[in-house]
Amino acid sequence: MNIKERVNKLRNLMSKKGVTAYIIPTADPHQSEYPADRYKSRAWISGFTGSAGTVVITLDKALLWTDGRYFIQAEDELKETGYDLMKMGVSGVPTYIQWLEDNLNKGDSIGFDGEVFSESSAEKLEKKLKDKDIKFISDYDLIDKIWSDRPDVPRSEAFIHEIKYTGLTSKEKIEKVRKYMEDKKANYFLIGGLDDIAWLYNIRGKDVANNPVVISYGIISKDKAYLCVDKDKINEEVKSFLQENSVKIKDYEEVDSFVKSIEEDSTILLDKRKINRRLYNGIPSECNIINQMDITTKLKGKKNETEIKNQKNAYIKDGVALVKFFHWIDQNIGKKEITEITASEKLEEFRREEDLFIEPSFDTISAYRANAAMAHYSAREDSYAVLEPKGMYLVDSGGQYLDGTTDITRTVALGKLTEEEKKDFTLTLKGHINLITAKFLEGTTGHQLDILCRYPLWQEGLDYNHGTGHGVGYVLNVHEGPHNIASVHNNVSMEKGMIVSIEPGVYKAGNHGIRIENIVVVDEDTKTESGQFLNFEVLSFVPIDLNCINPSLLDTKEKNWLNDYHKGVYKKLSQFLDEEERDWLKEETRSI
Amino acid sequence: MNIKERVNKLRNLMSKKGVTAYIIPTADPHQSEYPADRYKSRAWISGFTGSAGTVVITLDKALLWTDGRYFIQAEDELKETGYDLMKMGVSGVPTYIQWLEDNLNKGDSIGFDGEVFSESSAEKLEKKLKDKDIKFISDYDLIDKIWSDRPDVPRSEAFIHEIKYTGLTSKEKIEKVRKYMEDKKANYFLIGGLDDIAWLYNIRGKDVANNPVVISYGIISKDKAYLCVDKDKINEEVKSFLQENSVKIKDYEEVDSFVKSIEEDSTILLDKRKINRRLYNGIPSECNIINQMDITTKLKGKKNETEIKNQKNAYIKDGVALVKFFHWIDQNIGKKEITEITASEKLEEFRREEDLFIEPSFDTISAYRANAAMAHYSAREDSYAVLEPKGMYLVDSGGQYLDGTTDITRTVALGKLTEEEKKDFTLTLKGHINLITAKFLEGTTGHQLDILCRYPLWQEGLDYNHGTGHGVGYVLNVHEGPHNIASVHNNVSMEKGMIVSIEPGVYKAGNHGIRIENIVVVDEDTKTESGQFLNFEVLSFVPIDLNCINPSLLDTKEKNWLNDYHKGVYKKLSQFLDEEERDWLKEETRSI
Repeated sequence: MNIKERVNKLRNLMSKKGVTAYIIPTADPHQSEYPADRYKSRAWISGFTGSAGTVVITLDKALLWTDGRYFIQAEDELKETGYDLMKMGVSGVPTYIQWLEDNLNKGDSIGFDGEVFSESSAEKLEKKLKDKDIKFISDYDLIDKIWSDRPDVPRSEAFIHEIKYTGLTSKEKIEKVRKYMEDKKANYFLIGGLDDIAWLYNIRGKDVANNPVVISYGIISKDKAYLCVDKDKINEEVKSFLQENSVKIKDYEEVDSFVKSIEEDSTILLDKRKINRRLYNGIPSECNIINQMDITTKLKGKKNETEIKNQKNAYIKDGVALVKFFHWIDQNIGKKEITEITASEKLEEFRREEDLFIEPSFDTISAYRANAAMAHYSAREDSYAVLEPKGMYLVDSGGQYLDGTTDITRTVALGKLTEEEKKDFTLTLKGHINLITAKFLEGTTGHQLDILCRYPLWQEGLDYNHGTGHGVGYVLNVHEGPHNIASVHNNVSMEKGMIVSIEPGVYKAGNHGIRIENIVVVDEDTKTESGQFLNFEVLSFVPIDLNCINPSLLDTKEKNWLNDYHKGVYKKLSQFLDEEERDWLKEETRSI
Repeated sequence: MNIKERVNKLRNLMSKKGVTAYIIPTADPHQSEYPADRYKSRAWISGFTGSAGTVVITLDKALLWTDGRYFIQAEDELKETGYDLMKMGVSGVPTYIQWLEDNLNKGDSIGFDGEVFSESSAEKLEKKLKDKDIKFISDYDLIDKIWSDRPDVPRSEAFIHEIKYTGLTSKEKIEKVRKYMEDKKANYFLIGGLDDIAWLYNIRGKDVANNPVVISYGIISKDKAYLCVDKDKINEEVKSFLQENSVKIKDYEEVDSFVKSIEEDSTILLDKRKINRRLYNGIPSECNIINQMDITTKLKGKKNETEIKNQKNAYIKDGVALVKFFHWIDQNIGKKEITEITASEKLEEFRREEDLFIEPSFDTISAYRANAAMAHYSAREDSYAVLEPKGMYLVDSGGQYLDGTTDITRTVALGKLTEEEKKDFTLTLKGHINLITAKFLEGTTGHQLDILCRYPLWQEGLDYNHGTGHGVGYVLNVHEGPHNIASVHNNVSMEKGMIVSIEPGVYKAGNHGIRIENIVVVDEDTKTESGQFLNFEVLSFVPIDLNCINPSLLDTKEKNWLNDYHKGVYKKLSQFLDEEERDWLKEETRSI
C-alpha cells in the first residue's frame, strides 16, 4: 500500500465517521520525545520519517507540518505522495491550528486519537476554534483500522535499577512525593511521563530505543503507590523488589478504570502536557485538578550524590571510548575507507567495550564537512559521505550505561582547515568557555545564562539556531527537564545537582558545521553578602581539537581554561589507554 | 492632628460604613509612579514619606508595607504612631493581600478608594480572597473626608510640545493608533497613563513634579479623539493646536459619563494596570474588553529620528552642566563647606544655565561615602553629610529639557581611595562596558542582556540588588516602559530607537556605594545570515573618574572603550566650556 492509498483509505473512514479533518501528531500515549515504532502513525501515513511533524488530512488535502531541520528531507520523502509540505516558522505559513481555523466551516468536525493527544494540546485546539462551532471527535484511532502490519506495543522485560546506582530507594522517593502532595492537599498524583515513572520506581526497561523506560502509568495516593504496566514485563525479581517498596502492580489498561473510580471531590495532581485526552476524560468531573509540572520531574532533575558520582564515572568511560575512536580515525584516515556510517559503528564498538554499557542514548550524528551544517543531520544507507584527510568532521553521540547517560559533541580537523573554519571554531570555543566558567547567583535561569554562550559569536555576526543546552537524564532520556539553557524563556532556575549540556555551534550551509558540547553539573560556589553563588563542574573529558583553533583569538583566561581542561582529560583517561593511545592523547592535550 | 488621631478618625468612619479593613495604596487615579501631593494619602495617614508603600487599617491594627530601600526610614518615621512595619521581601512577612486572607473572617468587608486602585490590583485582591466570602467596598475615599487641608488637584497650564521636538504630529500618532485598533477590531481605546496621553497629543504640563504631564484621560474612537482634562488648563493656543489635530476637549470628569454611554457590544482596548476600578466599573458590562499593554506605550517607547536628534542635544547640554559641577567640586572640596544638599543645589544651578531646561527629572541622589550604599538615599534637611577630600561621592540626577529627558550617575573620588573601593569601581565599570559594547540579535530582551552587566561582578561574588536599566522618556517620565534591563523577566524585545539606562553598581553597607550610569539608544548594527544585529549608541557624555579605577583589572578592549569614550566626551563638550574647565576636562579624559 503506497502513501496515496493509505491516505485514501483514511479518507473513506473519515467520511463514514463524519470527520472533516483528521490530525495525526508525532506522539505516543505518554508524550515521549521518541515514540516506540507502534506509535509512528504519522510516519506511516505520510512517509516522512523525521522526528517531528504533524499531519492533517481533509477530504481533498494532505498536509505535513515540520520544522527547519527537516525541510529538505521532507520535500524528498513527500514526493509523489500528494502531500503539501507546510514549513513551520517560515513567514506566512500558518500553524496547523491556524490552518484549521482558516479552512474549516461552522459545523465541521475535527478528529484525532485522544490516546496520543495530550490534554493540553487538545484544550489548546478547542480554545482556538471555540468560535467556529466545530465538533471534536477524539474517540477513534482511525490509523489503527487501516495499518494492517502495525507493530505491537513493546513488551521488553523491566529490570531493577539498583540502590548503588540510584542512591535513594523507591520508598524514599515516594515519601518525598507524598510530602509534596500533603502541601498541595492532593489525594492523588497521576504520572504519565515514562522517565518520571522509571525514576520514581527505580526500574528501567527497553520499550523505547535509546530511552531505558517501561511503558506504564504511575499513581500515588496518600497510602498506596501503583505501577500500571503489562504484567508480562515484570519478572519475579522485579515483582519482589516493587513489593519491598510497597508498590502495587496493576495492568496497563487498569489505569482507565482506576481513574474513573476516583472518589468525587478528590484533588488530583497531574501535568496536562503528559496526560492524554482519553485518560483525562475518564476523571470524574467533580474532581479538583491541579495542573502543573510533575513534582517527579523536579525531583529527578536534581541529581543526588550517588547519581553524580556514578555519572562522573560513566563520563570517564565514555571519554575513553571517544579518545580510542578519534585516535583510530587519526590512524586510519586516508588509509582505509571510513564513511560517516562506518565511523559511527566503530564509535559504538568502542563504547560497547566499556563496563555497564547498555545502548546508545540517541542516534549518532556523524557528519562530514557540509553535512555538519545541518544541525540534526543523519547519514542514511543511501546517502552518506566518505571521510577524507581534509576539512572538519562532527560527531554528536552518547551512551546509556547502568551508571549514567552521556552526550558529547566534538568537531575535529581531518586535515588542513581554512582560516574561516578555524575562526568559527575558536569563536564557538570562546562562547563555550564564557559559559562553562561562569559563576552565577542562585535563582539564575538557563534563559539568563544563554546569552553568555552566544555573546562571542554575536560580536562577529554569528549565531546558532538551537538551544545552548538541555537537561540530561541519569540512565534515562538524554533530553530531560525541567531546566535548559535557551533563548526561549523558561522560568526554571539552575539548582545544585542539575545536569545540563553546553553546546554552542556555527553552521554555514554548504560549507561546514561546528559544535562543541560538554556536559556539566551545577555545583555550589562561594556564599557572599550578595547570596549563594553556583558554578558548573564539567563531567565530559575528551580533547578539544587544537588543530581547529586559532590561538591568537583566545585571551589568557581562555587559554588557561583550555590547558587546565586538557590536563584534566589526560589525568583522568590516560590510565585506561594503551601506550600508543596514551602518547597520542598526550600530544592532543598539550598546552598552548 | 497627629498620626494616631488621623487613624482613629478613619476607624470611626470605617465603623460607620461597615468596613473591617481599609487599604490605602500609593497611587493616583492614573497609577503614576510619582503622584501629585493631593494623592499622597498613604503618607498623610501614616507619616511615612517614602515613595512606595501600602497601608492597611483595621479596627485594632495599623500596618505599613514597604520594601528594603525604606526599612530604616520607615522605622524612624513610624515611631509613636501605633503602626507596625511589614518588611516586604523579608522571609516570613506576608504580602498585604496574604495578610488580609490570613486575618479576615467570612463576612468581613474590605474598603478602598476605587479611584486610586487599578482594576488589575482590585481583581487580584478579589481573586485571592474569593473563597472567604468578603465584601469589597470601593466607592468611598474615606481619607478625603478627614483630610481637611488636603491639597487641591493640580491645575497647571498645559503647553504644546512643538513639532520640531516631536517629529510627528498628534494627528499622525493618532492614525498609527487607529491602524492598530483596526487590526484588533476595536471601537474604542481608553488611555489612563498620563505620559501616554501627553505623548499622543503632543502636550506637556506641570501637574506632577519632575514629570511634565497633564492630569487627563484619552479616548480614541474610529473617527474621534478626546482629551478629558480640566478646561482651565487649556489656553487658547493649546485649544487651537488640539483642534488642528482634530482632538476634542471634554471635562476631566466627563470621562465617566462618556465611558458609561459606550454602545453595547463595543470592543474596548485598555490596560487594566492603568485604568482605575471606579472608571472601569462604569463600562457597560456588554462591552468586550481587550486588556493589554497600551499601544501608545509601545509606540512611545521607540523614539523617532527627531526625538533622538533632540535627545542627543539634551545630553550634550546635560554633560556640560555635569562637567561644570564636578570641576566646581574639584576646585572647592576641602576649601569651603559643601554638603550633600548644597552640592545638589549647585548642580541644579548649572543645569538651569542650559538652554530649554524645565526642571529636574527626579529628586537628585547626592550621597557621600556610606550614604551611597543605600541605593535610593535621599539627604534631608535634618540629616545630611558634609563632603570631605576623601572617599567616594555618588550623584544620580537628571533634567527635563524641552528637547529631552536626562538621567546620569557618576561616582567620583574626593580624595584617596582604598584598594577595595577601586576594585569595586573597576568591576562595576567592567560590567558597564561588557553590556554597553554588546552586539545582539534582534528579538533579544533586556532580561537576556541583564546578565552581561552583572557577569564581571558575579565572578567576584558581588551583585547589585536593583535592575540594570530602565526605559527613559522623551520630555516625559524618567522611568518608562515597555522595555527594561533586569533579572526579573520581561518579554519585551529591544528595538531600534528604544532608550534605556545601563547602571550597574556595588553597595557595601556602612562603607561605600558605586553606580555608573549612562543612557543609550538602541541602533541597528550589521545584518548577517544569522539575522539583524542591534547595538547601543551612547547618549551620555560625562567623564568616568580615572582616580577610581585600578587599570590592572581592565583588559585592552575595556581600556580602548574607556579611552574612546573619553575622547568623545572631550570632543563633544569642550567647546561649551571656559578655558579652565576645558583644561580640567582634558586631564579628566586622558588616555590610560
